[in-house]
Amino acid sequence: MRQNERNRGRMLISCPDRPGIVAAVSQFLYHCGANIVQSDQHSTDPEGGRFFMRVEFDLPNLAEQLPQIEKRFQEVADKFQMVWRMTHAGQKKRLAIFASREDHCLQELLWRWRLGELPAEIVMVVSNHPDLEPLVRPFDIPYHHVPVNKENREAAENVHLELLEGKVDTIVLARYMQIIPPRMVQRYRNQIINIHHSFLPAFVGGKPYHQAYERGVKIIGATAHYVTEELDQGPIIEQDVQRVDHRDQVEDLKRIGRDMERIVLARAVRWHLEDRILVYGNKTIVFS
Amino acid sequence: MRQNERNRGRMLISCPDRPGIVAAVSQFLYHCGANIVQSDQHSTDPEGGRFFMRVEFDLPNLAEQLPQIEKRFQEVADKFQMVWRMTHAGQKKRLAIFASREDHCLQELLWRWRLGELPAEIVMVVSNHPDLEPLVRPFDIPYHHVPVNKENREAAENVHLELLEGKVDTIVLARYMQIIPPRMVQRYRNQIINIHHSFLPAFVGGKPYHQAYERGVKIIGATAHYVTEELDQGPIIEQDVQRVDHRDQVEDLKRIGRDMERIVLARAVRWHLEDRILVYGNKTIVFS
Amino acid sequence: MRQNERNRGRMLISCPDRPGIVAAVSQFLYHCGANIVQSDQHSTDPEGGRFFMRVEFDLPNLAEQLPQIEKRFQEVADKFQMVWRMTHAGQKKRLAIFASREDHCLQELLWRWRLGELPAEIVMVVSNHPDLEPLVRPFDIPYHHVPVNKENREAAENVHLELLEGKVDTIVLARYMQIIPPRMVQRYRNQIINIHHSFLPAFVGGKPYHQAYERGVKIIGATAHYVTEELDQGPIIEQDVQRVDHRDQVEDLKRIGRDMERIVLARAVRWHLEDRILVYGNKTIVFS
Amino acid sequence: MRQNERNRGRMLISCPDRPGIVAAVSQFLYHCGANIVQSDQHSTDPEGGRFFMRVEFDLPNLAEQLPQIEKRFQEVADKFQMVWRMTHAGQKKRLAIFASREDHCLQELLWRWRLGELPAEIVMVVSNHPDLEPLVRPFDIPYHHVPVNKENREAAENVHLELLEGKVDTIVLARYMQIIPPRMVQRYRNQIINIHHSFLPAFVGGKPYHQAYERGVKIIGATAHYVTEELDQGPIIEQDVQRVDHRDQVEDLKRIGRDMERIVLARAVRWHLEDRILVYGNKTIVFS
Repeated sequence: MRQNERNRGRMLISCPDRPGIVAAVSQFLYHCGANIVQSDQHSTDPEGGRFFMRVEFDLPNLAEQLPQIEKRFQEVADKFQMVWRMTHAGQKKRLAIFASREDHCLQELLWRWRLGELPAEIVMVVSNHPDLEPLVRPFDIPYHHVPVNKENREAAENVHLELLEGKVDTIVLARYMQIIPPRMVQRYRNQIINIHHSFLPAFVGGKPYHQAYERGVKIIGATAHYVTEELDQGPIIEQDVQRVDHRDQVEDLKRIGRDMERIVLARAVRWHLEDRILVYGNKTIVFS
Repeated sequence: MRQNERNRGRMLISCPDRPGIVAAVSQFLYHCGANIVQSDQHSTDPEGGRFFMRVEFDLPNLAEQLPQIEKRFQEVADKFQMVWRMTHAGQKKRLAIFASREDHCLQELLWRWRLGELPAEIVMVVSNHPDLEPLVRPFDIPYHHVPVNKENREAAENVHLELLEGKVDTIVLARYMQIIPPRMVQRYRNQIINIHHSFLPAFVGGKPYHQAYERGVKIIGATAHYVTEELDQGPIIEQDVQRVDHRDQVEDLKRIGRDMERIVLARAVRWHLEDRILVYGNKTIVFS
Repeated sequence: MRQNERNRGRMLISCPDRPGIVAAVSQFLYHCGANIVQSDQHSTDPEGGRFFMRVEFDLPNLAEQLPQIEKRFQEVADKFQMVWRMTHAGQKKRLAIFASREDHCLQELLWRWRLGELPAEIVMVVSNHPDLEPLVRPFDIPYHHVPVNKENREAAENVHLELLEGKVDTIVLARYMQIIPPRMVQRYRNQIINIHHSFLPAFVGGKPYHQAYERGVKIIGATAHYVTEELDQGPIIEQDVQRVDHRDQVEDLKRIGRDMERIVLARAVRWHLEDRILVYGNKTIVFS
Repeated sequence: MRQNERNRGRMLISCPDRPGIVAAVSQFLYHCGANIVQSDQHSTDPEGGRFFMRVEFDLPNLAEQLPQIEKRFQEVADKFQMVWRMTHAGQKKRLAIFASREDHCLQELLWRWRLGELPAEIVMVVSNHPDLEPLVRPFDIPYHHVPVNKENREAAENVHLELLEGKVDTIVLARYMQIIPPRMVQRYRNQIINIHHSFLPAFVGGKPYHQAYERGVKIIGATAHYVTEELDQGPIIEQDVQRVDHRDQVEDLKRIGRDMERIVLARAVRWHLEDRILVYGNKTIVFS
């Protein structure tokens, strides 16, 4: 645990907007002895809209104090009808990464994780292919090869759910080329991050670089989003783009796209791990 | 006519790819006494693909010589089954700008034109509203107010076609909020440039900023394209994007988008006027 | 005055960081009956650093109440050693624009102002040349032609100071090609915004596009900054860049650069007018 | 060797501009039986300037034919006073990568190389530290640990030159934190590529992220350039930038900067390996 994580807490709040929320929350934290080190807020509409807030604070002996503080805060929360949670930065989220054959997103995440950019415990890599096992081995992370095909799909999904249960908070699909079943989506609502290799909502579904090539776009993109029951329709977390031109064949688009996929996915995962994302309807509020 | 336009010619060629094309064209121009000042080419596939070429050259007394040169070049063209044309930079294209109520794209074009960035003769502005007439007046360009509504649509289109006939080569839709009828599309094939206020193919049709807001995208865009019979489906000439976030309401997207619309449209129009665009299938090759 | 400006107030605070600041400010505003609609904060270091805060709030009858509120807030301010100010969004800043011969930045500001993007009263345009007077005339803004040359420099500066005194809060240098004298800098500290046509700190001083061309950079930029006594060394407010390549001559860099200058300057001016900028040392904090 | 590299040749030409160059070169290649698959050209000025050309062509049995073709082309070259060279895409450049302790640039190059994005033979990694040896081991590339300090500097440079001599064409400094001595610069003129972690010419020399932080810039950059005798003054190959703001501390700038450094260096190296760069004075022409 890094020094500045030991006593660092985060609070995420969503409630109907009305006067007095910031005052109540900041007073509460002040009386707890917490020092606010970052605070972000957003209101969809000061008149009758919804209010969102993220506070990062330092508080001595946070780990011991947190249960007590949470209990006391419920009173403030009730008054403002808040949906809320507190997290402890020192309590890292447990991550599973799903991949298939392409290595660039998986490798990017592992490299950034080793460098300390991704505050997580990576508890496993799951793949429907054995190919990426050598890449993962030096990181000393368990690699589960779970083949998926038409015949065994449901059984494979059972294996996935068992592997994850109780061990994992967040799932990252690092170019995992299989559909995620509704029961897994429901079990890990807003906890599964996918990288789609197009600038959504353009080019939903399969072979987006082929689609982009056919349409003759001058810019291509990548999109990180939470997975929902509808394919490529979940709340968008982050997007980025790159310029292309008539000389770029599908293979070039794939090459150019890989760079974006890596960076966009890594940003989205970092924000998720640092509790910077609030989902509202089918959109995200990112306090980056 | 600026000095460097007087003897500046351009040649645009498209033909099946095979060895010897560049040699034949460059030999031809050399023997005519022309000096190549810029040359761009593209092949969709050296084996059995299509070859595209744009040459810019200087040749003394170009205006007088051009008809003769065109006649002589036909022999080379026949040998390689070329679709081709030569243009004289000093012979500016004649432009009509269509607008409705929003002024930003129209103003941008007029300002750049006055500054010498757009080598065209702007022969008229056509609008279904009278609002922008004061903006156009100082530029001494005729402003035709042609109201369009459900009842008079066909009559209005007749007026348009008569206004344009024989006077205009290129039509720019500078946020003109009316559908262009098939007969005008056919009459001015690949000569009508529209600016769509989204990153196509996302958010086709009406109210794209509202659509973008609803979907919660993190980047918005603008797209300049040639108008075809299918709404917002024509060959894309240029696109650009800007980052937005959860704080941006529809009005902010419109404000941010205006800057892109202006710049993207101006780029596309300049490239068109300088004969830098070749249309191939439903795509463009832009030798910018 | 637009509806949402009538009762909209803003508060800018800077003070040594310590626990309780947000709580004190938000409690104060709550007890005044104000509704916080936006709040941003930044700490250079939670331990012994400096804390910055900007709050936007709505309060009925703000205009009448403001003097009273300011008086009462001084107690809170004293406790935390705050440097602070409150502004009323309905009380627009009074702007003077200085320009020389190039029109693009001036025109951009006037156009955005007419569109409502720049909440200011533009009280005069000052130029050392008569050229841009026709551009300004339709906007019904006084145009003061004050020639400046080696012989009359000091007299001209006197004219400037007299013109501005008591009438103007903010000065925008829209490609004004004269040095601003120290006495004007001191009189309007952090109120004079300049657009420099390079990506500062690269290419300080004259002819930055020539310098960029000579150095062979692959990206050029523009920088909006507050004017200080040292040329091109003031706090940077905003920057943006565009890609260029070996084909771009100095004239192309100027053309490409104009688009950036316009947009970067307009952004900086809008943020200044909306009290979104705090200057700290030689840097800015922009709560955009 | 990939299929499309076996018979793929490249020609790089620089000469005084005058009519007939393109015709002569394309005729020559046509008569050799070559098919031009890509051709780019640039003239600093059609009147008395310098002309640059890059041609990519396919020719059966290129390897055997190349010496003969080069010999015959000398006649054309003499006529136009050309500086020129032909290369065979199948004859990959031999690369040495120099690194110190930071792994991101080295890893990026190795990963892209394994993926086939960098057409080179990587013959060695040289480092003044042992730290990165484990990273290189799985790629089966020799890792030479050559410590460098004040006392042994000249001896270390001798070791470097011996290691490289006859084995290496191109040297990439992947965040190698030592000065390259003039004798190595001269030996590998325009063959040593460095990545500097700032947007040159801003922030030359050491600790550029600290410099950027101090100056309060709103955008940071990275620059790949050829190494010359003057520190950070060599011809710029490629640059890219990222937006930052007041919240970003030096550590954040480093993190954001790493992503640019990786991508900018990889682009520059790929262009170099594909013979897409011509150096002219202290600038580059990149036919990307």
